[in-house]
Amino acid sequence: MSGEELCLRLPDWVAAELPPRNTPIAEINDRMRLAIHLAQVNIEQETGGPFAAIVFDSSHRVVAAGLNLVTTLNCSSAHAEILALSLAEQAIGRYRLDKSHELVVTAEPCAMCAGAIPWSGIGKLVTSATDQDIRSIGFDEGSKPKDWHMPLVDRGIEVISEVLRAESASVLGQYHDRGGLIYNG
Amino acid sequence: MSGEELCLRLPDWVAAELPPRNTPIAEINDRMRLAIHLAQVNIEQETGGPFAAIVFDSSHRVVAAGLNLVTTLNCSSAHAEILALSLAEQAIGRYRLDKSHELVVTAEPCAMCAGAIPWSGIGKLVTSATDQDIRSIGFDEGSKPKDWHMPLVDRGIEVISEVLRAESASVLGQYHDRGGLIYNG
Repeated sequence: MSGEELCLRLPDWVAAELPPRNTPIAEINDRMRLAIHLAQVNIEQETGGPFAAIVFDSSHRVVAAGLNLVTTLNCSSAHAEILALSLAEQAIGRYRLDKSHELVVTAEPCAMCAGAIPWSGIGKLVTSATDQDIRSIGFDEGSKPKDWHMPLVDRGIEVISEVLRAESASVLGQYHDRGGLIYNG
Repeated sequence: MSGEELCLRLPDWVAAELPPRNTPIAEINDRMRLAIHLAQVNIEQETGGPFAAIVFDSSHRVVAAGLNLVTTLNCSSAHAEILALSLAEQAIGRYRLDKSHELVVTAEPCAMCAGAIPWSGIGKLVTSATDQDIRSIGFDEGSKPKDWHMPLVDRGIEVISEVLRAESASVLGQYHDRGGLIYNG
């Protein structure tokens, strides 16, 4: 057995693309625009897949960002949501975030991430590109019910979908057109 | 934003509890017994929750082990399956394991881990304690269909359930009786 420590590091460019610490981003569209920008840079820099996620606190300040780093870090669970939530938990020093924390993701969560979200304790999920957009470029989302958001809503998590959907879908399309690796396809 | 690297380290005692490198464990019951032993030590050492997972290769040798380290590492996604699969991928240097890899887990996967398993590429899942055993001590398994294994089977993953169930359920009971932290309960 090798490897008793799993270390997943965000690319060095991430910090420079985020607003100065403690800067609030008041508008939901602007928070999503930042996440879509990170997804775009991730494909331009060839550091991972076309997905990004950001955890914001109750004052709309960035707590942590995550990217899809599956192929670059050789880790099938290194999805944007898992990284953003885990890094946010690390930042606050607890294994549960608060109901006032919001997860902004550039696409609907896959089956794994939809299962991970309730464990994080967040109170709000905001998504952009849809399952259909993701599958249309060849990514598999796993076994999800059609009403994938209902188990979250039933647990008190507010879900807002399709915010700037066309912009995020455009990034997915760019990834596809660049010949980006579609794993699990 | 703080924390641009997520590092999840197994407790130092793990290496000493595993067989010498490259030792095959031919019998499925013995492979599960090893996983249950790791879960037991994890609660005795108070290093995490009552769940363990091990990835074995086609020769039944340990590739990587994982433990539930949610509360000790402050990471809600640090479930045994996620760690074992991710560490195994790291060990072989690829983001997909092979169909010949087997994941042995001391309990049925939660909704997140059930979603993560197909992404790992493994061909076989072996479980012990059931959803009912887990929920009976207060842990939440998330939103799972009753036939939770069918989406895995449909993707070509063999699922063998309830191997040494009573032994694993006993470890869950010990955790509960010791006053182990039931998060998300």
